[in-house]
Amino acid sequence: MTTATALATADPAGHVDAGRLLARLDALARHGARADGGVDRPALGAAEIAARADLVAWGRASGLTPYTDGLANLFLRLPGFADAAPVLVGSHIDSQPTGGRFDGTVGVLAALAAVEAIRAAGIRPKRPIEVVAWMNEEACRFAPGMMGSEAYAGLKTVDQILPIKDAAGTTVGEAAAAVLAADRDVPLRPLPGRAHAFVEAHIEQGTVLEAAGVPLGIVTGIQGTRRYRIRVTGEAAHAGTTARSDRRDALMAAMRMIAAVEDLTREAADTLFTVGLFEVKPNAPSVIPAEAFFSIDVRQADDAVLDRLGTAIPETLAAHAGPCSVDVREIAHAPSVAFDEGLRCTLSKAAAALGAPAMDVFSAAGHDARSLARVCPTAMLFIPCRGGVSHHPSEHAEAEHIVLAARVLATTLARLADG
Amino acid sequence: MTTATALATADPAGHVDAGRLLARLDALARHGARADGGVDRPALGAAEIAARADLVAWGRASGLTPYTDGLANLFLRLPGFADAAPVLVGSHIDSQPTGGRFDGTVGVLAALAAVEAIRAAGIRPKRPIEVVAWMNEEACRFAPGMMGSEAYAGLKTVDQILPIKDAAGTTVGEAAAAVLAADRDVPLRPLPGRAHAFVEAHIEQGTVLEAAGVPLGIVTGIQGTRRYRIRVTGEAAHAGTTARSDRRDALMAAMRMIAAVEDLTREAADTLFTVGLFEVKPNAPSVIPAEAFFSIDVRQADDAVLDRLGTAIPETLAAHAGPCSVDVREIAHAPSVAFDEGLRCTLSKAAAALGAPAMDVFSAAGHDARSLARVCPTAMLFIPCRGGVSHHPSEHAEAEHIVLAARVLATTLARLADG
Repeated sequence: MTTATALATADPAGHVDAGRLLARLDALARHGARADGGVDRPALGAAEIAARADLVAWGRASGLTPYTDGLANLFLRLPGFADAAPVLVGSHIDSQPTGGRFDGTVGVLAALAAVEAIRAAGIRPKRPIEVVAWMNEEACRFAPGMMGSEAYAGLKTVDQILPIKDAAGTTVGEAAAAVLAADRDVPLRPLPGRAHAFVEAHIEQGTVLEAAGVPLGIVTGIQGTRRYRIRVTGEAAHAGTTARSDRRDALMAAMRMIAAVEDLTREAADTLFTVGLFEVKPNAPSVIPAEAFFSIDVRQADDAVLDRLGTAIPETLAAHAGPCSVDVREIAHAPSVAFDEGLRCTLSKAAAALGAPAMDVFSAAGHDARSLARVCPTAMLFIPCRGGVSHHPSEHAEAEHIVLAARVLATTLARLADG
Repeated sequence: MTTATALATADPAGHVDAGRLLARLDALARHGARADGGVDRPALGAAEIAARADLVAWGRASGLTPYTDGLANLFLRLPGFADAAPVLVGSHIDSQPTGGRFDGTVGVLAALAAVEAIRAAGIRPKRPIEVVAWMNEEACRFAPGMMGSEAYAGLKTVDQILPIKDAAGTTVGEAAAAVLAADRDVPLRPLPGRAHAFVEAHIEQGTVLEAAGVPLGIVTGIQGTRRYRIRVTGEAAHAGTTARSDRRDALMAAMRMIAAVEDLTREAADTLFTVGLFEVKPNAPSVIPAEAFFSIDVRQADDAVLDRLGTAIPETLAAHAGPCSVDVREIAHAPSVAFDEGLRCTLSKAAAALGAPAMDVFSAAGHDARSLARVCPTAMLFIPCRGGVSHHPSEHAEAEHIVLAARVLATTLARLADG
């Protein structure tokens, strides 16, 4: 058995291959590359299939064994000598339609570099360590997001997830089948899965680290969120002949609803309110809209505030429907999460051992770590992202910070796999 | 030469073939038929090409000669014995995406039935009479609408119209070329064209006739309109990590603009304000919208009110842009139109001769007659439409009213062609 002393001697962090890690970051960015330098890589799409093939090839070349499951989560496994639940490390490789090269991807590639470093250092871990790319974190093709990690953690069943459709009417089941057909030689494992611990590295998507000039954030937790889909039904009619008083204008009703809910969310100054999706039908300039369909996304660290909004939002939407009818579905409700104290401490020590400054930060964005935190000790490591900008082609993280995250992960995973 | 007395004896109205007219109404409704009984027949699309083929075949079978022009307006010509500008009669066959079977179509088919009746009555007119189906009245595929009639009247040049694109990026030029290729054996004529007079029958798209229980409306004029396209540019950013104060949310800016312009249009109680088109990019639930694109359509009979709005709307839009930028394009501005007194009188007399009650009505909707009114005596004949509903699959007009309109047109056209 590898002892703590042996681990220290083995120096896995020192074996992180920085050049290879950064070259892979470039390589993955080509799958779904946008003309503006960003990435458009929807969950379970062709670009993601190509990116998975790269990950599988890289993992195999480094002696890792790929696995997948019925939802096309992807695992690259370094075996342990004990029959024990694995230490999981990773993030996701799907992106927003106007996404960047770093969100999700750095967490998967830093994890792979860390596990390769452990192997290169000659460490044979007690527990298996698995690099994971969770299916559909972003929720832009299929909603809600974090499907893969929620199913792995047993928070949702596969049967609940497979029938969900994208805008074109394709189900998760159909899209996942296409992905699994593409990597036919990767063995399938059942869901939910086992987990001894989970660590996820990610860009901060905020400005705390950048402002403080600190390269690493030990994430204390994730703010809560509630997500809705609202369908307002009015009646199509001629824009030039229908008197104001006779109109059932779904767009104008939706506007009143959104203004009222935005007011509501100003109760707490730090509540974030976003309508990112908005569509009308028939969407013709001379026709009064018969239907409006939109999303509401609210985020708030204080669960009490979020609970009050959960009551008030549907009431407010209904109160402003006017002559239209409204259907409100809450598609996700995740209370705030506090990450595992012990695991946060392990990450801090790993950073300290490398002489790297680190500070506590809170995550405003949701992550797959939220799902895993429900079933195993879980923590996250943030690196700065320029200007706090993410979900945008100009998203940027420094190479040295990405490499540093991989080194901290290497030390941390070696400890965790020994536990 | 046919004298007025001879015309009265010939009784063209009595030769209207009601059964054939109604059967053709059913036949045209099959081109672009929606499952809900409505019609979706965009300008210059495949369904319109099929509908045109029917019109050409019906016209030829009745001894009329088809013509077209560079914008794919379609004409079915009954020759006159003098070399004179034609009397034009017709409407359009394109529809809104959620359109009905009557808007536009009844005007073309009643016109065809009227011209056939004139021929069947043995009348050889002095002036040619041409049934016309104007290209793109509705403005839902290509904007603004009334392209065909505006070019015929010389209000716009073909070169101004051909480069206009639909949502898929197809230009009018490309789409028109496909239509013209489909009816290769129909001779092309130059634009602008000649016109001695124009008469258009149409469903009212309002409730005045229905409420009064009167089957025919002699249209006094058309209310003015201004139409805009507004592009709001903000910045895409993460919905969970971007503080309210750091956001450049294009959707929220667009909502503020629309609310403010709606307020503005309440100065006059009868101003109609519609946002029928509204799109956001990237249209993802977790991404703050980087762009919002929407239409504004205002209608008002009083040109002074419309002029004030023309100044105030762009100012108001700019004033509510907040942290976003806004680009405002006015794509159409049509002042109110008053139709020709003499031609209205001719229509009234034709109705009276048939013993049909008629009343004056004002048109809230725009029509191709607006374009022709700029270059020749022009008038319109309305028939009731149930509940005032149009641009909707439930749009309905009574068969007896459609036939009556054809009969009034037959008498009117015979008089006009003799002038």
